[in-house]
Amino acid sequence: MSLETEAKQQVSFDSVIRERRSVRHYDPSVSISEQELKDMIKEATLAPSSNNIQPWRFLIIQDPEQKQRLLPIAFNQQQVVEAAAVIAVLGDKEGYKQLGKICRLAVEAGYMTEEFASQYTERTVKTYGSLPEERLERILLIDGGLVSMQFMLVAKARGYDTVPMGGYDAQKLIAEFRIPSRYVPIMLIAVGKAASPGRPTSRLPVEDITFWNTF
Amino acid sequence: MSLETEAKQQVSFDSVIRERRSVRHYDPSVSISEQELKDMIKEATLAPSSNNIQPWRFLIIQDPEQKQRLLPIAFNQQQVVEAAAVIAVLGDKEGYKQLGKICRLAVEAGYMTEEFASQYTERTVKTYGSLPEERLERILLIDGGLVSMQFMLVAKARGYDTVPMGGYDAQKLIAEFRIPSRYVPIMLIAVGKAASPGRPTSRLPVEDITFWNTF
Repeated sequence: MSLETEAKQQVSFDSVIRERRSVRHYDPSVSISEQELKDMIKEATLAPSSNNIQPWRFLIIQDPEQKQRLLPIAFNQQQVVEAAAVIAVLGDKEGYKQLGKICRLAVEAGYMTEEFASQYTERTVKTYGSLPEERLERILLIDGGLVSMQFMLVAKARGYDTVPMGGYDAQKLIAEFRIPSRYVPIMLIAVGKAASPGRPTSRLPVEDITFWNTF
Repeated sequence: MSLETEAKQQVSFDSVIRERRSVRHYDPSVSISEQELKDMIKEATLAPSSNNIQPWRFLIIQDPEQKQRLLPIAFNQQQVVEAAAVIAVLGDKEGYKQLGKICRLAVEAGYMTEEFASQYTERTVKTYGSLPEERLERILLIDGGLVSMQFMLVAKARGYDTVPMGGYDAQKLIAEFRIPSRYVPIMLIAVGKAASPGRPTSRLPVEDITFWNTF
């Protein structure tokens, strides 16, 4: 086990959730290797998803020229060019068509029988194929939220910072980056090394946001 | 620091994300105190949200009678009655109206000036107030996904298990639990002590779900 891996494994869960903050100023000299970005995506996608369909897709923008193209689309927020990468989290409306592959992998790993896999795939693909578009999109947005949160925590555990961005022109993003119509943009996440720490923010008291048993 | 707190803080981030699995069988004899559920919600809501509006709300169903009422609404999935609690994660369409309070708390904590708080609140409340309903709901679903993921990890770090549930009749949930129309149901999360471990599941290879720089 490398020292780096050992260090990563020792990061406590509690410190990660308490120290994660939205960071808007990044050290532009720090890049993150393609391999490490892949490792981070891999860890993020341990998140659960509706029927384990994993409809999330990631357009990872790290090339300086492409980040410049993204800048005006994200209303000139500097983190877009200063962070090591910006990840456009997308939901794939045809993601359910990959369920057969997901189940084959599960059969190969001994997690399910071939019979269960084939019945489950057939039934679920049929259900998703007949969902109204609006219902399907809701699932993509929720699952996209799940994986985005886990990604931001994974990055923090590795010593990076992130900021989730809803402020961008989705139509321009789709046009400029030639995103096929099957993909729904969910959010942008900038990731890199903080140049200055994120501002602390307040939270509503638990009493304001919880209801017990019924309204 | 109590031994329990110390133990919790030593849980490594890596083990939490690797060991979290969707668990469908719970020990019905294990309950979770209201205080601990509140602590878990508090930790979960350290998650980020669009404009820090924190539009998530939580209907926590732990009363045995209410869990029985929920059972048919969730298509008789036994975890609804066997888990210690089921949390209906809701998005509040009027959540942005609490931004004034959120900013007041931030001013009191010294995180922002009064001037910034008042300008920011006025501008943001105006923007959200004029968003098309469909756009507002998208934000609620994404933010709901973020907080749900962090909740599931928080539970795991405390030795509990969870399962996110999309399989329920949202209209019946609204009717039976008298959920006001301003709240959008996002998902149910059962939380408790596992009676048997969750099944491992497969993930798509990173290569299948990532795109680099452009399509």
